[in-house]
Amino acid sequence: MGEDTADTSSSGRQGRSNGATASAGVDDKTKDDFCLAAVYVSDAQFNRNIFFDTSPQAVSLYLLYNHWAMQMIVYVFIFVDLALALFEDPAVIPMPIWGTSLVEMICLIVFTARLFHYAKVIPRIRFWKDPKNICIIVIILLSLIDIIIYGSLKSTGYNAVRWSRVLRPLLLVNVTEGRQLRRAFRSIRNALPQILYVFFLFMFSMLLFSLMALKLFGKRNLFTVDGEPYFTNFLDIVFDLYVLVTTANSPDVMMPAYNYNSFFALFFILYILINTYIFMSVFLAVVYNNYKKHLKEEVRQLVKSKRQKMLRAFAVLQQPGSGEELVVSQENWNQLVHLVQPDISNAHRELLLFVFSLLLIGKLAFVQLPDLLNIQVITMKSRPHPLHIWFPLLYDSSVSRLLRHAVKHKAFVYIYDLIILVNAIFIGLDEENPLIAYAEWAFLALYLLEILLKLYTWEPRAFFAKHQFWNWFDSVIIVAALVGAIVNLSDGYTSRQILDIVLILRVLRLIRVVDSIKRFRTIINTLIKIGPTILTFGQLILVVYYIFAMVGMELFKEKVKYLEADSTDPYKDSCGTPLLRGTTFAKNNYCKNNFNNVVSSFILLLELTVVNQWHDILSQSVHGFKAVWLYNNLFHLFFSGYKTVDGLLQRMFEADLSLEDADDMDDPNFSNITFDSV
Amino acid sequence: MGEDTADTSSSGRQGRSNGATASAGVDDKTKDDFCLAAVYVSDAQFNRNIFFDTSPQAVSLYLLYNHWAMQMIVYVFIFVDLALALFEDPAVIPMPIWGTSLVEMICLIVFTARLFHYAKVIPRIRFWKDPKNICIIVIILLSLIDIIIYGSLKSTGYNAVRWSRVLRPLLLVNVTEGRQLRRAFRSIRNALPQILYVFFLFMFSMLLFSLMALKLFGKRNLFTVDGEPYFTNFLDIVFDLYVLVTTANSPDVMMPAYNYNSFFALFFILYILINTYIFMSVFLAVVYNNYKKHLKEEVRQLVKSKRQKMLRAFAVLQQPGSGEELVVSQENWNQLVHLVQPDISNAHRELLLFVFSLLLIGKLAFVQLPDLLNIQVITMKSRPHPLHIWFPLLYDSSVSRLLRHAVKHKAFVYIYDLIILVNAIFIGLDEENPLIAYAEWAFLALYLLEILLKLYTWEPRAFFAKHQFWNWFDSVIIVAALVGAIVNLSDGYTSRQILDIVLILRVLRLIRVVDSIKRFRTIINTLIKIGPTILTFGQLILVVYYIFAMVGMELFKEKVKYLEADSTDPYKDSCGTPLLRGTTFAKNNYCKNNFNNVVSSFILLLELTVVNQWHDILSQSVHGFKAVWLYNNLFHLFFSGYKTVDGLLQRMFEADLSLEDADDMDDPNFSNITFDSV
Repeated sequence: MGEDTADTSSSGRQGRSNGATASAGVDDKTKDDFCLAAVYVSDAQFNRNIFFDTSPQAVSLYLLYNHWAMQMIVYVFIFVDLALALFEDPAVIPMPIWGTSLVEMICLIVFTARLFHYAKVIPRIRFWKDPKNICIIVIILLSLIDIIIYGSLKSTGYNAVRWSRVLRPLLLVNVTEGRQLRRAFRSIRNALPQILYVFFLFMFSMLLFSLMALKLFGKRNLFTVDGEPYFTNFLDIVFDLYVLVTTANSPDVMMPAYNYNSFFALFFILYILINTYIFMSVFLAVVYNNYKKHLKEEVRQLVKSKRQKMLRAFAVLQQPGSGEELVVSQENWNQLVHLVQPDISNAHRELLLFVFSLLLIGKLAFVQLPDLLNIQVITMKSRPHPLHIWFPLLYDSSVSRLLRHAVKHKAFVYIYDLIILVNAIFIGLDEENPLIAYAEWAFLALYLLEILLKLYTWEPRAFFAKHQFWNWFDSVIIVAALVGAIVNLSDGYTSRQILDIVLILRVLRLIRVVDSIKRFRTIINTLIKIGPTILTFGQLILVVYYIFAMVGMELFKEKVKYLEADSTDPYKDSCGTPLLRGTTFAKNNYCKNNFNNVVSSFILLLELTVVNQWHDILSQSVHGFKAVWLYNNLFHLFFSGYKTVDGLLQRMFEADLSLEDADDMDDPNFSNITFDSV
Repeated sequence: MGEDTADTSSSGRQGRSNGATASAGVDDKTKDDFCLAAVYVSDAQFNRNIFFDTSPQAVSLYLLYNHWAMQMIVYVFIFVDLALALFEDPAVIPMPIWGTSLVEMICLIVFTARLFHYAKVIPRIRFWKDPKNICIIVIILLSLIDIIIYGSLKSTGYNAVRWSRVLRPLLLVNVTEGRQLRRAFRSIRNALPQILYVFFLFMFSMLLFSLMALKLFGKRNLFTVDGEPYFTNFLDIVFDLYVLVTTANSPDVMMPAYNYNSFFALFFILYILINTYIFMSVFLAVVYNNYKKHLKEEVRQLVKSKRQKMLRAFAVLQQPGSGEELVVSQENWNQLVHLVQPDISNAHRELLLFVFSLLLIGKLAFVQLPDLLNIQVITMKSRPHPLHIWFPLLYDSSVSRLLRHAVKHKAFVYIYDLIILVNAIFIGLDEENPLIAYAEWAFLALYLLEILLKLYTWEPRAFFAKHQFWNWFDSVIIVAALVGAIVNLSDGYTSRQILDIVLILRVLRLIRVVDSIKRFRTIINTLIKIGPTILTFGQLILVVYYIFAMVGMELFKEKVKYLEADSTDPYKDSCGTPLLRGTTFAKNNYCKNNFNNVVSSFILLLELTVVNQWHDILSQSVHGFKAVWLYNNLFHLFFSGYKTVDGLLQRMFEADLSLEDADDMDDPNFSNITFDSV
């Protein structure tokens, strides 16, 4: 995974094309030259670091390889491949083995084809040196072998395990497009050695406290609430104190000692202070420092490789200018911009021309192109309202003017905020009251009226512009609510699902009030902008969860069962197994927290992430089934480490993006450095 | 509290003394001048910002006021005043009312005297303008009134409340020395307006989710594990979802809905994602940004006022040098340094002279004096070993040399690490086995031998130098263990307390292993250096806890009782009250989590801080006793906000002090900016 930033050496083509232009003189750039330069520019723009072949065929193949549709196809098939877990045994929706195998085969074929395509684009030797490619080949081969073994074993009636499913999420990491995910993993890996030292010290402190607890409480003949001996076994103490670090068993573990003597509370207070607060802070500090160091280096590398690519592009298009300097003519420059971004808006192109108000573009100016292309230009055209064109007299009449003026007035916003408030109260009331049901229609009408009035006042295309998040939000919610309400009405109020959707939409409508308070809007907009970053970590979590879910399912499926109330199972009250009889797990109705399919596995893992009660869920659901210690601890160790890192990264991002700076965030470098580069 | 950094205007004396020196010419500085200059320098050194009178009498009073013993006395009496809660009703150790009242009166007298002293030092008008002084006067007066009312009511048999106890911790904030605490409170206060917006948005999101939950689950006839209707009352839902933000009721609150339909898990997952993770991150980001901004300003102010004070000191001692420049002669300079820091080591003085290798010291150099005085100079004198002086032949014999060489060898450390390891295993074993008991003596002897050998090898005063933390730690632990073991032996192993202490010391000994691993030592040393900062926040927590404990005790004392097993109370199983019969609270044996005295109140508040089960502890212990909603929410609201801020501040400190930079931390500015100034 380390090649992304390292691979910035220059390609063979550069020299040739450089030499060619030098000898052939001015303005004889071929279409291939433009293609090559455009590829360099767009690589720089999107921070791609692929060492492609520079022959015209390879370049056009490479263009195809980077086409958004191709990338989309890969992600769709990865999604399908991952989603197969829903249909494979233990399944949410069972499907025959040949069915899932067939779909998986298709996925594998797509991945192979993509890899072939990649092999055609880059030099052979490069291809085999890249661990990403080797990884994908290994995953594909192992999956194939697994499908064959599993299919043949199952058809002959043997039991079999689909072990290769663990490898599936690794595809997400190893595809060419998984740059950001790889970077995130690299960050974690780089922090590991440092974290390890703190972790050892933390373990040491935990063991020391455990030893002290054994000596202090072991001989005192104390008992827990369940009547078990308290703190007599060293390993049990270690586990209890480990759980206490996460504060999940917080007062319970202390109570017997505290009841015996108030002073013993000091032991636990000190323990939590040192191991939960201080050590966790040190973990955080170490990760943060490492991350900052690493980030700086990554950004430096990215900027360097971006510049190199732009210099290569310049070398392809350069021609002698006045004096010693090599330059690119504005004509060639325009052609290049058109090639790189065919759908560039006129405003954006004008802006670029304004920035480079020169006829010949030198090296220094040329290098800035990708940053300038990444600027998000919002075009604010003051187009006349279509009604103004169609019915000018009516639209300009004094009544119409007054109406438009009223809609633009602040009071209009306040009135609708009040309506939303009243609506909220009505929602809170019982909707089976016919009066409330009628009021609901009135509210819907009011909201619709608002949208229509706004569309009357503002030009519709400006109202529904790309960046007008709140207008889109309003309209979609209201229209959906209207459709839902009508369907619900025609359905005679019988379908619970539709009613649920209508109810949710009704509540979501209230979010609109946020838009009218400026500070709230700022906060929400900031959160929306952070979205892409969070998405990367979402993928990271998906990878980890998926692997653990697969392992968990193979190990524990059907060990704990959720039984409906009318079940006749003799162990109905203890999740279908005699082992859980009388445990807190069964008493608290946790039976559905099991590994019986991929959905409940994911929910279970999420619950463990939220930490509270994790020890109950895990150790209880596992009590009878030994050999689980390892899995148990592995997940939680991995996870507590992981959580620190991940939570931290998110926090750091948000800390770096101060809400104060929300206005600065339209800065062109912002999206570059924070979203794409990191 | 805002005056600390603002009060940097120049005093009246400056002009006078300035004029005096200018007219009187060279080298006629009086003792008073030196005193005044020394006060300015030490104010600059310790970041004091007190606008004192510059008359010689006031200056010497001011010197006395800042004497460490006077400051110590104030803190001792504040401590005594706060500790009175242990003896006042509801008491841990009951004392008659006249006794506690008498002690409190003495404390109040001390505080009044200190305030009088302060009033003598600074100009009258300044004194009455300072809110700190007004605060202390009000606290003293209210306490007096309260004592009188309480005493007279009690003596006539009425019930009374010691309401003024809530004010006691405010003394910590308002004494002159509480600068850092005030700064911490200011940081929190400054962040409040910003946090409030995020908080409102957070509340809005919570209410929206609650409304949605009511609509989705309210009509479905679901029941919780306890058989109560699930999510039917809006206020209950709000409370449940508020608890869910802290993840304290994590899987339980979801289970009924999840059992009904797996899809409903999505609702809770989204809720936790948005309200726990995203909003908490935003809180953190806002506080962090605010804090950073505020800190920058505070440090700027501190540096400015420090420079102003040094300029004033310079003005007092200045004399015309060669040319236009005003200077301070080296002689005067030496006298000043001697006055400011009489116990300055020779090495430090030499260092200062080396830095200012000039005969006349200009303004720019002079201003740096406080920073130079704050440098921690560790003198490494290569004094000969006393044994070498007393028995030179013996100490230099080849056997002795070999011995000393061996002690200095790495293997010596490794051998003792191994001994510690073996010792740890022996501690883990049953100490009632006579063999183990003997082994314990052997280990003690080995550790003693180690210390003696080290003292033989290294010069004892160097071995026990101030900065040799680990040598001190080892020796104290070992000697204490030896004393404990001997007492225990002579006691015939009967006293459980002494045995406990011996056991704890035995385990603490194992910490030494940390010292021999370099990276561990670095981490621990960093933590020790952060200590003073954490202490400030410790005081902050004390203030908050104390206030809440006092209020809690007055409201809830004796409502929940912890009864011994042999009690005859009819409600023995439900904490002495029929209201708690059958609750989780009673079942989990939480009865000792009550407000019956100040110690258990503090432990209870700590448990609430640790978050897990807080809803159970609080709402259950309170179920019957209404009017508690407010207290309940107040504490937790305040606290969750507070925790964010405080945890954050700590983390930020630690994040700023990278472990990587541990070596840089001897930087003289470090202690200045991070420990004193912040």
